[in-house]
Amino acid sequence: MISLCDVGPRDGFQYEEKLIPTDLKRDVIEGLVAAGLRCIQVTSFVHPKWVPQMADAEALVARLPHHEGVVYTGLALNLRGVERAIAAGLTQVELSIATNETHSRDNANMTVAEGVAQAEAMIALALAHGLQVQLGFQTVFGYAAPGDTPLEKIEAMAARFADGGLESFSLADTTGMANPVMIKERVRALQAVVGDVPVVLHLHDTRGLGLANVVAGLECGITRFDTSLGGLGGCPFIPNATGNIPTEDTAYLLDQMGFETGIDINKVAEVTRKMATFLGRDFTGKLYRLV
Amino acid sequence: MISLCDVGPRDGFQYEEKLIPTDLKRDVIEGLVAAGLRCIQVTSFVHPKWVPQMADAEALVARLPHHEGVVYTGLALNLRGVERAIAAGLTQVELSIATNETHSRDNANMTVAEGVAQAEAMIALALAHGLQVQLGFQTVFGYAAPGDTPLEKIEAMAARFADGGLESFSLADTTGMANPVMIKERVRALQAVVGDVPVVLHLHDTRGLGLANVVAGLECGITRFDTSLGGLGGCPFIPNATGNIPTEDTAYLLDQMGFETGIDINKVAEVTRKMATFLGRDFTGKLYRLV
Repeated sequence: MISLCDVGPRDGFQYEEKLIPTDLKRDVIEGLVAAGLRCIQVTSFVHPKWVPQMADAEALVARLPHHEGVVYTGLALNLRGVERAIAAGLTQVELSIATNETHSRDNANMTVAEGVAQAEAMIALALAHGLQVQLGFQTVFGYAAPGDTPLEKIEAMAARFADGGLESFSLADTTGMANPVMIKERVRALQAVVGDVPVVLHLHDTRGLGLANVVAGLECGITRFDTSLGGLGGCPFIPNATGNIPTEDTAYLLDQMGFETGIDINKVAEVTRKMATFLGRDFTGKLYRLV
Repeated sequence: MISLCDVGPRDGFQYEEKLIPTDLKRDVIEGLVAAGLRCIQVTSFVHPKWVPQMADAEALVARLPHHEGVVYTGLALNLRGVERAIAAGLTQVELSIATNETHSRDNANMTVAEGVAQAEAMIALALAHGLQVQLGFQTVFGYAAPGDTPLEKIEAMAARFADGGLESFSLADTTGMANPVMIKERVRALQAVVGDVPVVLHLHDTRGLGLANVVAGLECGITRFDTSLGGLGGCPFIPNATGNIPTEDTAYLLDQMGFETGIDINKVAEVTRKMATFLGRDFTGKLYRLV
């Protein structure tokens, strides 16, 4: 069994300029649940000044019906975000920290060490309130160039959190710099560091290598991937960049390779087509056009 | 060293309704040569009633300058096509035959056995005139469903041609039905049958698995792939289908995995952007948008 977590309602929607009504977001999330998704990243608790599309985070979470076995996660980037996730009643929060000094400075205006210290405080707060915590490492496979974040640095960071009560680690290819060789090298190295904590791969298809990287991840024993309906999403650092690996295409790949996902690809594609109609453009996923 | 053959001027252009002027086709081909491509499928010798875009086959070939080490190939689907390729002065012709009875009937209105017999006559004619011949097998990984062409049938066909003086075999995933597991199974089985004759993979990215399938092909020792600038192309049987694996994205994957291709991705992308402007739409390749 391979589990996909659809992060489209957060990682995809956040780049859209056209305001997506809260009810449409809820319908998308409900559609994904009906399609068999058991993990959905529904929003991020960031300041609406930075991401206006996420201003309805609390309102959206309040409208999501409970489904047995379905986890809704939200992204938090600081203590205030964790507080909001707790208050909103989420059971799982995702934190995401920089691993590359240049990226950390460019994106978060702090050093990596400052981000680590902040994450420790955020984890403590979330755990104290009974939330499960996924800790994401950004640009694990490169920021400005493939592999430009030293693996040793990421290993040291992972070691610091390995016994910290995390539900999972997420290794993010934020800028789509990974390739199958690097996936195998870095994923195996980090799995060795974190031991029993599950490792999730969060891959972007910026350069078209997303599904090839999934296969490399499978060969490392990865059983959880972040995906996005239709491949919705982008990258704030790269104009015209395509987004996350598409949920439908990833589910199809896995299905064809003999892995169970529990996902009804046709039903995901229906949701994707609804969003493509609303946003008025095609996405980069392939399957949603065909099924 | 991995060799890519850009089949875009044939497999891509043939689906375009807007007539592409012969001089623009020549400029595209010259651009690909300048970008380091050493094999380009420039046209097909089919009746212009079926593919009006290829009506200028002879005129185009006549306008292509000779470049040392560069092979221009043309596709022929019957004896008349081979005669035209010979008369046009090409040094290599590609033949392409059905392996699936339903596909053969639907597409060529003949049985697979009739196609094989016709191919033998075509090969004899081409070899008698000193041309190199690549024989392509269609829908090797499925026609209406993944794997619906029996492998034993394809193996028997390959065995019949294994000592026939071919320059290479091409295994085509015409409908994008392949997945990495099936690639390894079928490619290895067919390599065992054809012995020393090089095997080329002709992959379509219809379902987004193209580059994952390239990696599987590399693991089988494949060193030659057909690609298309920007991923231009489609599939006549599948509405909205995307096309061949993109030349730029494939070259990038290979480069990142440490394989030499001799291809300047930026220069290919320039050619792709010129065609995207001419045709007035985006293609499915990722890299050409970024570099």
